[in-house]
Amino acid sequence: MEHKMVIAIHFIFLLFAPLSLASLPSKRVPCKHLVFYFHDIIYNGRNFKNSTSAIVGSPSWGNKIKLSGLNHFGDVVVFDDPITLDNNLRSAPVGRAQGLYIYDKKEVFTSWLAFSFVFNSTRHRGSINFAGADPLMQKTRDISVIGGTGDFFMSRGLATLSTDAFEGEVYFRLRVDIKLYECW
Amino acid sequence: MEHKMVIAIHFIFLLFAPLSLASLPSKRVPCKHLVFYFHDIIYNGRNFKNSTSAIVGSPSWGNKIKLSGLNHFGDVVVFDDPITLDNNLRSAPVGRAQGLYIYDKKEVFTSWLAFSFVFNSTRHRGSINFAGADPLMQKTRDISVIGGTGDFFMSRGLATLSTDAFEGEVYFRLRVDIKLYECW
Amino acid sequence: MEHKMVIAIHFIFLLFAPLSLASLPSKRVPCKHLVFYFHDIIYNGRNFKNSTSAIVGSPSWGNKIKLSGLNHFGDVVVFDDPITLDNNLRSAPVGRAQGLYIYDKKEVFTSWLAFSFVFNSTRHRGSINFAGADPLMQKTRDISVIGGTGDFFMSRGLATLSTDAFEGEVYFRLRVDIKLYECW
Repeated sequence: MEHKMVIAIHFIFLLFAPLSLASLPSKRVPCKHLVFYFHDIIYNGRNFKNSTSAIVGSPSWGNKIKLSGLNHFGDVVVFDDPITLDNNLRSAPVGRAQGLYIYDKKEVFTSWLAFSFVFNSTRHRGSINFAGADPLMQKTRDISVIGGTGDFFMSRGLATLSTDAFEGEVYFRLRVDIKLYECW
Repeated sequence: MEHKMVIAIHFIFLLFAPLSLASLPSKRVPCKHLVFYFHDIIYNGRNFKNSTSAIVGSPSWGNKIKLSGLNHFGDVVVFDDPITLDNNLRSAPVGRAQGLYIYDKKEVFTSWLAFSFVFNSTRHRGSINFAGADPLMQKTRDISVIGGTGDFFMSRGLATLSTDAFEGEVYFRLRVDIKLYECW
Repeated sequence: MEHKMVIAIHFIFLLFAPLSLASLPSKRVPCKHLVFYFHDIIYNGRNFKNSTSAIVGSPSWGNKIKLSGLNHFGDVVVFDDPITLDNNLRSAPVGRAQGLYIYDKKEVFTSWLAFSFVFNSTRHRGSINFAGADPLMQKTRDISVIGGTGDFFMSRGLATLSTDAFEGEVYFRLRVDIKLYECW
């Protein structure tokens, strides 16, 4: 009897061990998994009505209606892009992707993103906040889910980005595979 | 006796169940709750001395001394705003709100914020870092507390923003209701 | 015997108490500790080839090839800086620091940073995402690790910045002491 109890207590300590080191015990299994697409049409001086984003900062050799040379290094873009459930730009948007991205490497296309998914539909209400590097010539890139509100209260996780389509320098579509590992 | 111990062990497993799924056990009760106001006076070409922020990026149709048309879409603003405990701009600041906001929707005033509250007083020392979408025509908007330092070491939570006052395009005051759900 | 078991159960409840309040039990002992340096050479109109960053936004009184007066208030800089293991700019880079910083105070040099460390080497693979205020005249400044990917999957923690060197307005080197308190 006494023996059994000692085992029980031991077992408890084993379970606590990671916590006492201030690291969270965890398996890498998402508690929520969502896939969306968003669509970016950059303003080029002629597509004002359809555009969903615009260059708002650029290096001294750049301008605001054409992405700069050198792999767009230094361009800053503000966006309000429709989010869809499938890869069709004409599908009914379920939310908006809002924030900014920058191009930040001279030698190759690379961007850095900080933005939110904002939902206000029967399906989802609330927002998911993202930040991270997007080396966009790679097939898939991981950025961080740094927080969320509403249905996504206190979420954390990863989003795997992939370029689903692009048309010259005007349009691109990103597939966003969101895996939340902290759900409250 | 043996029976009691089995109950105890069972109870322990119940408590651990959520952890083993890598989601945090939690009640939505803040571990810390703070309310502040901050005050933004944007530079308009004539108020240099009093201004606390300035337009530093804009779309091709904008400029740096007047917020652009189209609900200021594309304007990027850098700020260093005083934080006060009440809604009086003349109250002694307890810290500074520092970072940037952008306007990111053509059809309605909407912004996106990334900034820190920086405290260095007897009351608070350290910083709180925020990011998120601010659809500012709504009465309240939630953004994420994505981290903290000093007194706010490793904090996470939400901040509920409300526009407490505004005067044309020059001044606004935000009430920031901070609820931390992770306190270390 | 019964007495001992009661003690055991009590002890368990003490350990659990913080969890039930939705705050994480923790000691402030890092689960991972890393030190790096990164090197920023800002474009000044004459150093195109060597520069690793560029001014891409500025207030109305600024420009893109010289940091503005007033402690550079309002300047926005995009960077792609080499990360090294020691403080030598010529050492083989182990990754890139990519993102943006702004100067955001008129009265004293103060910046705000949002960026990623991107690693793709045998030593480290993945990224660490950072955000926070950098009152750079202080000897050390803490910013937040707001997430990570790859080897740094779901990381959170702090980074302590110190200015290891600077040369006029063209070059600075930051020492980044990263302490992760959440490791998955």
